[in-house]
Amino acid sequence: MSNDKIHAVTLKDIDVTGGFWAEKMALVREISMWNVYKRFSDTGRFDAILFKWKDGMPNKPHIFWDSDVAKWMEAAAYYCLKQRDPKFEEIIDSIVDSIEANRMADGYFNSYYEVIEPQNRFTKRGNHELYCAGHLIEAAVAYDEATGKHKFLELMIDYVNLIYKVFMVDQSAAFRTPGHEEIELALVKLYRHTGEKRFLDLALFFVNERGVTENELYNQAHVPVREQTTAVGHSVRACYLYCAIADLAKETDDESLKKAAETLFNNIVERRMYVTGAIGQTCVGEAFMGDFDLPNLTAYAETCANLSLALFARRLSVLEPKGVYADTAERVLYNSFLSGMSLDGRSFFYSNMQEKDLRDSRRSYNDRHRVFCPAPQRVEVFSCSCCPPNVVRTIASVVDFQYTTDGETIWCHQYICSKAAIDGSGIEMRTEYPYEGRIAVSFTGTAKKLALRIPGWCQSFSFVQNGDVKTLIPKDGYVTVAVNDGDELYLDLHMPVRFVEADPRVWDDAGRVCVTRGPLVYCIEAVDNAADDPLLIRDIRLVESSDYKVLWNVIPDVPVLETEGYVRNWSGKALYDIAAPLEKKTVRLIPYFAMANRGESDMVLWTLRANA
Amino acid sequence: MSNDKIHAVTLKDIDVTGGFWAEKMALVREISMWNVYKRFSDTGRFDAILFKWKDGMPNKPHIFWDSDVAKWMEAAAYYCLKQRDPKFEEIIDSIVDSIEANRMADGYFNSYYEVIEPQNRFTKRGNHELYCAGHLIEAAVAYDEATGKHKFLELMIDYVNLIYKVFMVDQSAAFRTPGHEEIELALVKLYRHTGEKRFLDLALFFVNERGVTENELYNQAHVPVREQTTAVGHSVRACYLYCAIADLAKETDDESLKKAAETLFNNIVERRMYVTGAIGQTCVGEAFMGDFDLPNLTAYAETCANLSLALFARRLSVLEPKGVYADTAERVLYNSFLSGMSLDGRSFFYSNMQEKDLRDSRRSYNDRHRVFCPAPQRVEVFSCSCCPPNVVRTIASVVDFQYTTDGETIWCHQYICSKAAIDGSGIEMRTEYPYEGRIAVSFTGTAKKLALRIPGWCQSFSFVQNGDVKTLIPKDGYVTVAVNDGDELYLDLHMPVRFVEADPRVWDDAGRVCVTRGPLVYCIEAVDNAADDPLLIRDIRLVESSDYKVLWNVIPDVPVLETEGYVRNWSGKALYDIAAPLEKKTVRLIPYFAMANRGESDMVLWTLRANA
Repeated sequence: MSNDKIHAVTLKDIDVTGGFWAEKMALVREISMWNVYKRFSDTGRFDAILFKWKDGMPNKPHIFWDSDVAKWMEAAAYYCLKQRDPKFEEIIDSIVDSIEANRMADGYFNSYYEVIEPQNRFTKRGNHELYCAGHLIEAAVAYDEATGKHKFLELMIDYVNLIYKVFMVDQSAAFRTPGHEEIELALVKLYRHTGEKRFLDLALFFVNERGVTENELYNQAHVPVREQTTAVGHSVRACYLYCAIADLAKETDDESLKKAAETLFNNIVERRMYVTGAIGQTCVGEAFMGDFDLPNLTAYAETCANLSLALFARRLSVLEPKGVYADTAERVLYNSFLSGMSLDGRSFFYSNMQEKDLRDSRRSYNDRHRVFCPAPQRVEVFSCSCCPPNVVRTIASVVDFQYTTDGETIWCHQYICSKAAIDGSGIEMRTEYPYEGRIAVSFTGTAKKLALRIPGWCQSFSFVQNGDVKTLIPKDGYVTVAVNDGDELYLDLHMPVRFVEADPRVWDDAGRVCVTRGPLVYCIEAVDNAADDPLLIRDIRLVESSDYKVLWNVIPDVPVLETEGYVRNWSGKALYDIAAPLEKKTVRLIPYFAMANRGESDMVLWTLRANA
Repeated sequence: MSNDKIHAVTLKDIDVTGGFWAEKMALVREISMWNVYKRFSDTGRFDAILFKWKDGMPNKPHIFWDSDVAKWMEAAAYYCLKQRDPKFEEIIDSIVDSIEANRMADGYFNSYYEVIEPQNRFTKRGNHELYCAGHLIEAAVAYDEATGKHKFLELMIDYVNLIYKVFMVDQSAAFRTPGHEEIELALVKLYRHTGEKRFLDLALFFVNERGVTENELYNQAHVPVREQTTAVGHSVRACYLYCAIADLAKETDDESLKKAAETLFNNIVERRMYVTGAIGQTCVGEAFMGDFDLPNLTAYAETCANLSLALFARRLSVLEPKGVYADTAERVLYNSFLSGMSLDGRSFFYSNMQEKDLRDSRRSYNDRHRVFCPAPQRVEVFSCSCCPPNVVRTIASVVDFQYTTDGETIWCHQYICSKAAIDGSGIEMRTEYPYEGRIAVSFTGTAKKLALRIPGWCQSFSFVQNGDVKTLIPKDGYVTVAVNDGDELYLDLHMPVRFVEADPRVWDDAGRVCVTRGPLVYCIEAVDNAADDPLLIRDIRLVESSDYKVLWNVIPDVPVLETEGYVRNWSGKALYDIAAPLEKKTVRLIPYFAMANRGESDMVLWTLRANA
């Protein structure tokens, strides 16, 4: 089912009213935004875009710093959209003034190139120049919508007009398509905001030209995009490109682009994605590896990469409402995206551990044989600090994932406490999701059809409309009901603990199980289970059908599972001719997103099944 | 129980009469010896020791080539001991003549130093100079015993006298102890052969001085040997040193050396040894890693290292007859030692895979992130070709592992078809070991006590003496009976298939089982079980108590096990919310030593237990 009229319902039409995401949004607004701001100020990122850096000073501008600041500005704009904020606006306005004052005469703006090597603009494909432009465009669109102040957007439109001329008309740049994709999806956003078809044409140009004359697998320029069938190269670049492909398939009704997007998505989700929704298996090139090649200890799983898969999935939901898209966005959002930020909102992971053996991080391999293992602790800022502002802008606008509509049917993809105004109808949703599966919906206004997602993990559910129990059969991942003014709906997605297994071609997971409850993937940390000998967490055997208690006091406000499992009573030798007897052991599991919030700890996502 | 009078019974007093080892010895004599000879000739190793290399020619002599040739000569000498062989002797004699003609005036001999950098002799601790001397000493002792031609031994004694003077008396060398241990154990051999106490003193000097003024962990000179408690550094060097420690504990009755040897042995066997008996976990420094740190895919497990553990264990058996020593020698000999040679006797592994994922060998990691994975196929010669001659000399003299005696009790450590003459008694042993556990013994001559090892893997056995069933209780791994002239003994070590498990601190093996039968460790190769999709061998689930048929036609003369196991019926996605159903599958397992004889194949030693 493809439906040309489907479009996303966005932040402007939805207010988050409580629950899980309201807390995250408040935490980010109060803590994370200012912590990222402080760290970016400390490291010179704001000074750079304000053109305060002078030769000889520390913190020399870097090629991708504009994008770091732009994502922070975009996040601030989303908060301003809901509640104008003089402190955020003052910072953004000063940057906009700087852009106006410091841009080149022809509209070009880049704080690195203008200051450090102005003679080299548009000459180095690998230098993130158009990537920075893309993020500034996204920020400008968000700020325009939030405040009605047009200057930022006008400056960026001038810049885009220059890019259009240089790349499409004159073709005078030293390269043909961006080395780091991002501007393509930003141009579609700009087109949707302004209605100016030229921006769509430029996005399409970049996507169509990709892999035609240039030939780099690392940034998906190895073959034309319509011939790409497996996700390869740098994973963030890949999914940003795939986002644009999906967007352009939508806007231009191009079936070949839609096919390419679907094929690439299926390749990722069926064969190159961790159970947490993380992608980009290897540090080498921050890249995808082959099918089923999902090593845990050395997983790269960059926060931005994981998020980029959710962004791609969200765009596919707009193209066609199939449950697997929203399922995937959900898998990422509640697991490998959220793991990127500490529970206190202050620090961030670049690479998200899929398993931790602290021995490995400490092994004295020499340089030739060094094995990458992710950092065991989040930090407040890193030299390549793309992830923190990506996290904050996404949490600020997370309701963008909630609804799409074609005017007749409203699809609910994500369950978030909110009030939404959609095509003359109002939807108020109340839920403790993702911790409980009960969702209450009050519908008002113009009658519609409402399609509610039944997640792939959900094996049974109940549905009540105005007090009447209804038996509904999901189709493509959704149940659809007619709704009228005043309707009260109640959906209960049953959420028992379930074990996920992996195909044995996933070497590290074969024969093991991963514990999940609803959309949450659970992990086992040594700190809860084997503080004396962390490695022993690999020997825990669990029963899927046993009783799992939810504890709320182990980590404040985070549901920790406690159950009776088994371990062998080993006595300290490596090998046993006769296995030691199994003994009962109380085992605690925590949501993956809450991992590594209590110091360094060994951690596993994949454990053993008792009575397999 | 320590018994000063215990000594090993050696090749000179034992004739192998058939069975497993007779076949290996014949194969090595006919094929391997000449293949190694040819490859060593091709690569210049024989020319080097014959001083035929001249500046500008290819195959420039290398610092450790003397040791390669010496081990080949030692092997040839063992064959000559049983049956004089003009072809072997001609080669050895020509080398002995070369040593006589080309040694320095003071007795020094080293084909690398004399030709390439004579000014630098005894100046570079890391350059294998005394290691080469040690192997030449071992060869000379063997040749002296085999042929009664004394020249080789006399030349080496001259050289040892020089080493004694330079290192012990004048202390004029630029280093104090060898960078690569080996000469220490060779000097004990020379002492035992000649009775000359000076050679024992020199061995003791090298061992006692180790770690006193020099400080290198890599070659076990980090602390004095009596303070060493964990096996560290280069694993071959380590176990050669430990051999000498055990030998010297024996010869000098030094309890502190005995304690050190036992402690180091226990550390290896309980915590740093693979199920195949392989040691030296990492390619980085060809070294030991930490306790329980036994990664399979990246295991180094050099053939020489594995063998060196067996040599160490054999020496401990002489020091004290505890079953764990001979158990360990057996584990190595039938598994990670024998895996070092192809079934056709022509090619060799340096590093012995403990698991193979052909994907890993082919992954395009860049140089900074390269992961070592062992070669998937044996080759005929390698640039560092220490292993092939080490394999042949050990097979030629494998009965050195069979017996020790103190004149009253004869301990049988290994079950080999042979006739032995020990202290006026004769023992004829007939067995299909290691493939069957039935062992028949005919005893003649002077009455003795006979102690027969009950292997650690053996949970039940029966024993018959002259037709009478006797119930015996093993003590320290042995059952002991009085034997008289004409006694016929029959020991049946029951050999069902057994699963070995690993402590969960052994990350890669946790929750898995390794299939064994008697002393043989079995592995699963993709070629037998999942040729279409090799990775699926990781999903095989076996039942310990099910029926295991022995097939002799899959690999000629090698007992392959066939049983009914289970696999999941996966459909090709990486992750499953609901596990696919289990299906029956006929599974074949092969002895580990026979792995990789039918082309490259994925291989696992650790598989899943059904109904765990």
